[in-house]
Amino acid sequence: MNYSQVTSCICIPKAILLQPKTNWTSSKSGNERRAGHWTHVPRNVNMEGLRSGYLFPEISIREHEHIQKNPNARLIRLGIGDTTQPIPDIITTAMAEHADGLSTTRGYRGYGAEQGDMELRMAIAETLYRGTGVKGKEIFVSDGAQCDISRLQMLLGSNVKVAVQDPSFPAYIDTSVIVGQSGKLEEKSGKYSDIVYMNCRAENNFFPDLSATPRTDIIFFCSPNNPTGSAASRQQLEQLVDFAKTNGSIIVYDSAYAAYISDESPRSIFEIPGAKEVAIEISSFSKFAGFTGVRLGWTVVPEELKYSNGFPVIEDFNRIVCTCFNGASNIVQAGGLACLSRDGYQAVCNVVDYYKENAKILVEAFESLGLKVYGGKNAPYVWVHFPGMSSWNVFNEILEKTHVVTVPGRGFGPGGEEYIRVSAFSHRENMMEASLRMKKIFR
Amino acid sequence: MNYSQVTSCICIPKAILLQPKTNWTSSKSGNERRAGHWTHVPRNVNMEGLRSGYLFPEISIREHEHIQKNPNARLIRLGIGDTTQPIPDIITTAMAEHADGLSTTRGYRGYGAEQGDMELRMAIAETLYRGTGVKGKEIFVSDGAQCDISRLQMLLGSNVKVAVQDPSFPAYIDTSVIVGQSGKLEEKSGKYSDIVYMNCRAENNFFPDLSATPRTDIIFFCSPNNPTGSAASRQQLEQLVDFAKTNGSIIVYDSAYAAYISDESPRSIFEIPGAKEVAIEISSFSKFAGFTGVRLGWTVVPEELKYSNGFPVIEDFNRIVCTCFNGASNIVQAGGLACLSRDGYQAVCNVVDYYKENAKILVEAFESLGLKVYGGKNAPYVWVHFPGMSSWNVFNEILEKTHVVTVPGRGFGPGGEEYIRVSAFSHRENMMEASLRMKKIFR
Repeated sequence: MNYSQVTSCICIPKAILLQPKTNWTSSKSGNERRAGHWTHVPRNVNMEGLRSGYLFPEISIREHEHIQKNPNARLIRLGIGDTTQPIPDIITTAMAEHADGLSTTRGYRGYGAEQGDMELRMAIAETLYRGTGVKGKEIFVSDGAQCDISRLQMLLGSNVKVAVQDPSFPAYIDTSVIVGQSGKLEEKSGKYSDIVYMNCRAENNFFPDLSATPRTDIIFFCSPNNPTGSAASRQQLEQLVDFAKTNGSIIVYDSAYAAYISDESPRSIFEIPGAKEVAIEISSFSKFAGFTGVRLGWTVVPEELKYSNGFPVIEDFNRIVCTCFNGASNIVQAGGLACLSRDGYQAVCNVVDYYKENAKILVEAFESLGLKVYGGKNAPYVWVHFPGMSSWNVFNEILEKTHVVTVPGRGFGPGGEEYIRVSAFSHRENMMEASLRMKKIFR
Repeated sequence: MNYSQVTSCICIPKAILLQPKTNWTSSKSGNERRAGHWTHVPRNVNMEGLRSGYLFPEISIREHEHIQKNPNARLIRLGIGDTTQPIPDIITTAMAEHADGLSTTRGYRGYGAEQGDMELRMAIAETLYRGTGVKGKEIFVSDGAQCDISRLQMLLGSNVKVAVQDPSFPAYIDTSVIVGQSGKLEEKSGKYSDIVYMNCRAENNFFPDLSATPRTDIIFFCSPNNPTGSAASRQQLEQLVDFAKTNGSIIVYDSAYAAYISDESPRSIFEIPGAKEVAIEISSFSKFAGFTGVRLGWTVVPEELKYSNGFPVIEDFNRIVCTCFNGASNIVQAGGLACLSRDGYQAVCNVVDYYKENAKILVEAFESLGLKVYGGKNAPYVWVHFPGMSSWNVFNEILEKTHVVTVPGRGFGPGGEEYIRVSAFSHRENMMEASLRMKKIFR
């Protein structure tokens, strides 16, 4: 495994694929240790604290081994949550035209505002936050949600305590470790000592038992959830906001999959009254408009949100954005604006519907096998329960028998054990074929 | 001054424009303090340590006041270092075609590698690092140099000591403060207690006296320099590499203006033998190809570079890139690749030559006034000395008498006093006009 060869896969922790297996702090023979010049710069102890992730490289390794053993099998990859469908041409045309314009005196643009073009910020506010009170100037356009998570962590620093859902998207924990919030990894439990893990499993409707959750400064909360595919209801989010308010906490709400909501679940935390005083929202065009490789996201920091000394969080976040970021690409922002035009919005919703139809096919296939299936309705992920089984064993068996790659739930934290995540991001024919194979082999 | 209204200006510290004037930690009346809900989340003490920057908002304020007083004056802005010339259409066409392709099944791409497309990484290595031993896999493509500086600081953490040139581009110090390396700001000197300031003025040929420089873990070094416009010679860089090697330090070398070098000065620190064991290089397409708003840069982390425990820095930087970043926009990377094609490279060099011609006009104008002028030959910045004068007073006088906006050197650190920086990034007619006004008024 080499950092130059690693293929991309946002929804499993890519970074983990890269962790070297060598234990650099262990003692080695003098010669081996002393090859070449070493600086006297200490390695950041926080970086040393990142889990070494022998678990996840296994997906790539096992996939690779499977191909070696079965050279004629047609592998279907439903592991990685990566969009596959073309971007509607009303949007790509807007980007192409902006790019072309940059070669003209009239169309050329240098630096834009680090916070994003005000027209785009206003369009996001008016299209996606109508009625919530979120203003354009509270929206910071970025190059993606994952990047904003790390900028937020830089903002917060090491002296805060965080809670995460378990299972959860790994970036919350990994960035916590990097900035020094996490404490030590306890090998046995697979948990960091200073992070609060909020169990979210079928037993509690994938919503944490807040009465048993200790107070933290920050609560990372992703809805619709990656990986469980569950969207929190209005009532649940009201509880969450109330909990944060009582405890003086800040919710960092990740709504990257909001476009997939089919029912009455809120698409933004700011649909909940009072949320502007206790929440930040991170979101993205990646899964909404197929911008995974194009790169565009945003973060909402309400003016009402204050630190314990009364200082507005938005002022510090703005400072971070101006110091550590220089704005999203102007070409890409033109695409974002096109996504929010009437026709553009309709076109991206059609693509979202395509993936949602894929998800239905997956749900139906796993349910037909008598399994309990979650997610898929409000999210592009299907979360399948195999009671009492190791998620790794399930992953293996599916791969071996059907040549379909999934993700073992354990990779998203201890709370993901017994589950696998199956992604609806693929072409329809792959869904049909994967579904057919499942039914044929496991029924 | 409001974060939603701030205009962009990368080369003076924009962030500083945004620092609120309110002293939030001072005691206020109970009512004022307690308006609305306050969380119990502590503000990051490092953020509190950022200089409040009453100095820099002054540029905008004075510019604004000047316009109010002189509504008919045609202001010429040579303050901000922002590109103004169109991007050659061979490059914009490549981006437009990539964007158009994303609407097709064949051309659609989802997530790319976080480190950048290998084709682009190889092209950077072959075009810009030929003969240096830098490999494609040591190059990490990014959304810009400023973003990479902050990611590097996240990598290094709080437990390292840094040195910066004085004067210098403010992002090095500001990010040092944010991650907790800087110590306290000493109001009198304008310096942070734990940062080493390496004086770079005409007296020492804009190169630090290394025999008097204490050891630090990290040495930020920018050449060609922003703001002084001075490029370090091969001999100077050999001294620097030697100094770093002896001290076990890491040089973070910022070569964002390398394309402007006209003489034999090295364009990369990796032209110096042994530099791969002691240096990281950050660079950018912004000033090289007019990509200030398009966003593309890169960082070179050599495999040979090791921490004090022998762990390769590249492994940790790779982990940071994968956890905190998700790759530069694929559309923009297509443009970067086009910049490095034979015809594309020639075309961007022509634009660089245009700005260099601008710089010559500025140099000639200030020299004709009997002033000592530095920079302009290997950089798009002209650094003009006004011995014994306050750089703010000089800024004011030029603005009042000629309606030309510059940057007072003091804004780049205490070492910038007595100087002003004048940017060559503008249309030719502005250069001619500014030059004419200077000569007319001050001769």
